[in-house]
Amino acid sequence: MPLRELQYPAEPYSRVNRLRDRGDYTLETIHQIVNSCPMLHVSFQPPNSPFPAVLPMIGQMGSFTRPSADLGDVLDLYLHGYVSSRIMNLTRSPNSQEQEGLPVTVAASHLDGLVLALTPNSHSYNYRSAVLFGHATLVTDTAEKLYAMELITNSVVPNRWSNSRVPPNAAEMQSTSVLKVKINTGSAKIRTGGPHDERGDMEDEGLLDWVWTGVVPVYTVMGEPIAGGYNRVGEVPGYLESWRQEANQGAEEYAKEAVGREVAKKTGE
Amino acid sequence: MPLRELQYPAEPYSRVNRLRDRGDYTLETIHQIVNSCPMLHVSFQPPNSPFPAVLPMIGQMGSFTRPSADLGDVLDLYLHGYVSSRIMNLTRSPNSQEQEGLPVTVAASHLDGLVLALTPNSHSYNYRSAVLFGHATLVTDTAEKLYAMELITNSVVPNRWSNSRVPPNAAEMQSTSVLKVKINTGSAKIRTGGPHDERGDMEDEGLLDWVWTGVVPVYTVMGEPIAGGYNRVGEVPGYLESWRQEANQGAEEYAKEAVGREVAKKTGE
Repeated sequence: MPLRELQYPAEPYSRVNRLRDRGDYTLETIHQIVNSCPMLHVSFQPPNSPFPAVLPMIGQMGSFTRPSADLGDVLDLYLHGYVSSRIMNLTRSPNSQEQEGLPVTVAASHLDGLVLALTPNSHSYNYRSAVLFGHATLVTDTAEKLYAMELITNSVVPNRWSNSRVPPNAAEMQSTSVLKVKINTGSAKIRTGGPHDERGDMEDEGLLDWVWTGVVPVYTVMGEPIAGGYNRVGEVPGYLESWRQEANQGAEEYAKEAVGREVAKKTGE
Repeated sequence: MPLRELQYPAEPYSRVNRLRDRGDYTLETIHQIVNSCPMLHVSFQPPNSPFPAVLPMIGQMGSFTRPSADLGDVLDLYLHGYVSSRIMNLTRSPNSQEQEGLPVTVAASHLDGLVLALTPNSHSYNYRSAVLFGHATLVTDTAEKLYAMELITNSVVPNRWSNSRVPPNAAEMQSTSVLKVKINTGSAKIRTGGPHDERGDMEDEGLLDWVWTGVVPVYTVMGEPIAGGYNRVGEVPGYLESWRQEANQGAEEYAKEAVGREVAKKTGE
């Protein structure tokens, strides 16, 4: 435990209002949720659209200026995308370059369990969710772009970057864009534990004898790798296979252990 | 296959521009992705906030006026939430009631596989993602609210509603809000298949001999149910256990079979 645990400021737009005791503002908690999420949901308001845009994207937090920074430090979020896409064009428009960049909100959510109580209203999920608010700009520095591409590739499969053909050639560098989101603030919300019910239901003996209550743990599994049509490498490489098995074990353990950890102080969700 | 397959109109804000052949506008495809997603990401622009809001929510599509409607029909999206929360207050404000409701964008995304190619730039995901654009209003009719609560509860675990204490009492009806989103339009984007690489890499014999290429299938698993502290029902009920096993099998099969289905006509991601 560090002496000083950095926290994001609770702004009106980021504060956890409902079930406040589930809120968490520490950088380490939030960055951990984001960096372990294989798909982020990135939202922004395009001009002339009646609706906000929401894009599923791949992203990872890191520090180009201090690559050894850990999860509890101030980090930037790097998002992977395409030159032609709408979000990229918006961050490139004069409007957002004059200012700090395009305002974006990024959500990362993990479902950890179905919490089944005596009555539907007390049902809940165990989950970890984080949301970050910041300004997105295009990364133009080649070294920083390469740093982010490696960071993002290795977030999908650790060590994949150095175990595939790199560096990207000129056409690839040209066609791939990386967005950097400078974070203003963020928050996380976490639920663990078993079901909770209201007193009226807890005192109903017939109900207690009839309704099964508990948690169905939910976790993501990576199955046996399936070789592609032009694969020539006989065995699945160790860096991939050992990571896959560890990640599977870790995901299952988290979901199961979360059931025993009572964090929420209030009943129901 | 119905004679006439309904499609959502491709509006400027909903059109799939990048990798157009992965786009799908049929109601059935989009509704199927949404209804099988345990966590939706709901975005809207709060007044006086520099950033859009993104909330993970539970939701389900259905038709109150025609409950027997199937996935390919015109449906509404029902979202479960809390009276006190920001989105509920916004849909209740005079501003949005005078108009059609609060403009919201809802994203549903499934990750189905990690697609590992010869070079990081050709890496991809197999996935199914859908996005819906519409206007949210509070459901005030009691019968419709009950319909939506049952629909949403049974989307988490089929038949759970009738196997727990219902109907909700007055306090529960009061404290729970349901949002109804009238859909303007939507779109889906789906990738299946194995890796694709650029010709330059495919002709590099040394690279082909060195880099493993293929797909790591990814799917969600529901583990053995864990009884809660006050559970008295000895055996996990059949409606829960048989559904859990079928759902697990279906999820694993989808992710594995997706590898063999080549939909994308273009290379790369």
